[in-house]
Amino acid sequence: MRYEELTIEGRNAVLEAFRSGRPVDRLFVQDGCKDGPVLTIVREAKKQDTVIHFVPRLRLDQMSETGKHQGVIAYAAAYEYAEVEDILKAAEEKGEAPFLILLDGIEDPHNLGAIIRTANLAGAHGVIIPKHRAVGLTATVAKTSAGAINYTPVAKVTNLVQTMEDLKKRGLWFVCADMNGDLMYRVNLKGPIGLVIGKEGSGVSRLVQETCDMTARIPMKGDIDSLNASVAAGVLAYEIVRQRMG
Amino acid sequence: MRYEELTIEGRNAVLEAFRSGRPVDRLFVQDGCKDGPVLTIVREAKKQDTVIHFVPRLRLDQMSETGKHQGVIAYAAAYEYAEVEDILKAAEEKGEAPFLILLDGIEDPHNLGAIIRTANLAGAHGVIIPKHRAVGLTATVAKTSAGAINYTPVAKVTNLVQTMEDLKKRGLWFVCADMNGDLMYRVNLKGPIGLVIGKEGSGVSRLVQETCDMTARIPMKGDIDSLNASVAAGVLAYEIVRQRMG
Repeated sequence: MRYEELTIEGRNAVLEAFRSGRPVDRLFVQDGCKDGPVLTIVREAKKQDTVIHFVPRLRLDQMSETGKHQGVIAYAAAYEYAEVEDILKAAEEKGEAPFLILLDGIEDPHNLGAIIRTANLAGAHGVIIPKHRAVGLTATVAKTSAGAINYTPVAKVTNLVQTMEDLKKRGLWFVCADMNGDLMYRVNLKGPIGLVIGKEGSGVSRLVQETCDMTARIPMKGDIDSLNASVAAGVLAYEIVRQRMG
Repeated sequence: MRYEELTIEGRNAVLEAFRSGRPVDRLFVQDGCKDGPVLTIVREAKKQDTVIHFVPRLRLDQMSETGKHQGVIAYAAAYEYAEVEDILKAAEEKGEAPFLILLDGIEDPHNLGAIIRTANLAGAHGVIIPKHRAVGLTATVAKTSAGAINYTPVAKVTNLVQTMEDLKKRGLWFVCADMNGDLMYRVNLKGPIGLVIGKEGSGVSRLVQETCDMTARIPMKGDIDSLNASVAAGVLAYEIVRQRMG
């Protein structure tokens, strides 16, 4: 099932989106706006744990496509999110050890799209992204995924560390990229695995890193710090592919 | 030698420009911006006696080409294209077999930037791009290269096939990605090599492909056709790294 509309503007439309249970990635509300309908929308958003941004009117004016936002703009997911359970089921149906890619705060939609594309071709069973401080399934993500978004399930979770702990109980091992880790060719990546990719710039957050079982280092010879996040994801995902083929 | 006007935007890119000793004509900094990375940039600029302008954010927004200036924009004197000869010399000076990445018509600046970044970290000695029907070294390329553009030489040639023929006489072997090629793990990629990456969508052009000595296939399990060009470049470049380390 696909959703088409991406930006929802105006009080009725936004409230309707929440009440119909449509997944909303982000809600933008005009700063200081305290009248009844807006407060109702904020209450609904909180109930569904949607990320809320309070912004100046000027910002909403700039974001608005219709020019009639009435103080509220919602970004709905372009595509439907899967459950983590669906991803595990996909692996089981194929008779394969689960291979998941977890993204710890990727903010660039081009990177998210490219990673979903890589996940599809490397044979990963799904991608897990966090609800907060990360880009969701926007139109740009769908476009840069080159259609992979229609095949590879993407789940959105509130707490990445909690999800990892749950998955560890189900037998998964987690590996994250780390400059001080073991050379990736020497890390055993053959079993049920979750590959964790950190944010551009700051990398994997401390808590997530501590939850990982293994760290893998991509060999680097150059003058700069790190690969682009989607390239790093590709290189690591294909090291998993290589080891699984061997 | 060719020069192109260049605007450098974003904190990492601007800082890298200063640190690599690239001549910056003017630095524009957002008025009142006092956080660490920006202060570091201002200090570097003063050290090099660069003219600094403190301007309102709106001014930076107007100047920005990428929309992601992060409070700093630098006007560099120029970005210089290297000659193919410089790239071979760099390999020779390091006492390494040449490792070049050739791009057959990459049009997306994000991909070009990410590939230059990969080239730097994978230890490639340079990148060769065609003069026509391809993106050059723009501000977006510089930013997405995360500073790698300051270290990894990029040469621009009129005729990619002619350049490949010339380099073959100098002992280079060329490999391109191809869905019908040999599995990349089984292709010998250890010697003096040119990795050819094709255009998004259409891939490597017929003539260029015919000029290649080897074709390598990235294993693909999924539902869609191809990886993002910069991810494919990363996966193949790192297969070369792996074989050279072994």
